[in-house]
Amino acid sequence: MAIRYPNGKKYNPSPKIETSISKKKDLSYSNRGKTLEEEIDETNEFYLTRDIAVIHKKPVPIQIVKVEYPSRSAAVIREAYFRTPSTTDYNGVFNGHYIDFDAKETENKTSFPLKNVHPHQVAHMESSAKQKGICFLIVRFSSLDRYFVVPLEMLLFAWERMLKGGRKSIPLSEFEGQAIEIQTGYVPRLDYLKAITQLLP
Amino acid sequence: MAIRYPNGKKYNPSPKIETSISKKKDLSYSNRGKTLEEEIDETNEFYLTRDIAVIHKKPVPIQIVKVEYPSRSAAVIREAYFRTPSTTDYNGVFNGHYIDFDAKETENKTSFPLKNVHPHQVAHMESSAKQKGICFLIVRFSSLDRYFVVPLEMLLFAWERMLKGGRKSIPLSEFEGQAIEIQTGYVPRLDYLKAITQLLP
Repeated sequence: MAIRYPNGKKYNPSPKIETSISKKKDLSYSNRGKTLEEEIDETNEFYLTRDIAVIHKKPVPIQIVKVEYPSRSAAVIREAYFRTPSTTDYNGVFNGHYIDFDAKETENKTSFPLKNVHPHQVAHMESSAKQKGICFLIVRFSSLDRYFVVPLEMLLFAWERMLKGGRKSIPLSEFEGQAIEIQTGYVPRLDYLKAITQLLP
Repeated sequence: MAIRYPNGKKYNPSPKIETSISKKKDLSYSNRGKTLEEEIDETNEFYLTRDIAVIHKKPVPIQIVKVEYPSRSAAVIREAYFRTPSTTDYNGVFNGHYIDFDAKETENKTSFPLKNVHPHQVAHMESSAKQKGICFLIVRFSSLDRYFVVPLEMLLFAWERMLKGGRKSIPLSEFEGQAIEIQTGYVPRLDYLKAITQLLP
């Protein structure tokens, strides 16, 4: 049955909807079908239930314009817009350390395009690092099935280079030399806290 | 002009809308017209711009069901629902310390009703405290214009008492004896980090 809006227009599900809210996973039976976000969520759940760390993804910020209150039902938001987040997506606490990071995926096989990183995220991580927070990116090279923790210092180096007119991406060779590769496992899939041990004071 | 939905129904603005999203402030020219949330947001902005701390309110979690993509315009969320948050509303980092709290207001003059606190918030703060996070409530007795930082231990004591069949609120006298009163100022209005100094290890 076609879904119709009250005004009679047909609802056309757009592929954009899926990608902007939660990326589709394919039906492969390996962990490779999961999005990076799902892998991190599962890892965070593992950390939480084992009292290893308390790290959550922040909700997507929304500007709410119109809300309906149907009788005897939950409130329904009828008009709202996506807002630009002012921080990274993940933060929390791990054994006394403030943890703050964002997760990025690229299909690129040879470098990570910096257009995936927003200036406000860089600024937020710089501010948090001044407060002795542990800030980084988790980057997944999806085509290579490789995951890296990018320390803030490495990101800032590449960011400054770009601002000075240099390359707009970080080559894989820099990841191999300066980032920390995450060894994937079964449970948890993505033990990124193990990888960041060397970043702790 | 009455706002009408596409189906012809009139839009009835409900007072609930205001209270659930951002509480109305009255037009008094003093700071007393501000909500606690606004006062904390302003204080956090002050902390951020002075490099004192990086603390943000988390967005309200929303379950998005339907999104439209009008041509040449921003995506519009057309159906979404409020979800129960799984954490507290505020967290961040202050000079190496992970900070985690929720803000509560009461009109009550003699006690703070514990129904304002949700079990998942207590559980979240307990987990975060195990990771050496600094967890507390900021409680405003609006009628008295008094603000307190409630250390997690004080909250847990009252919470356990309630679960054992005892009183369902924390009397003001316990606030005066065990909580830390915040001295309000002009800029910042609510220097709660000064108040929590004694909670730091």
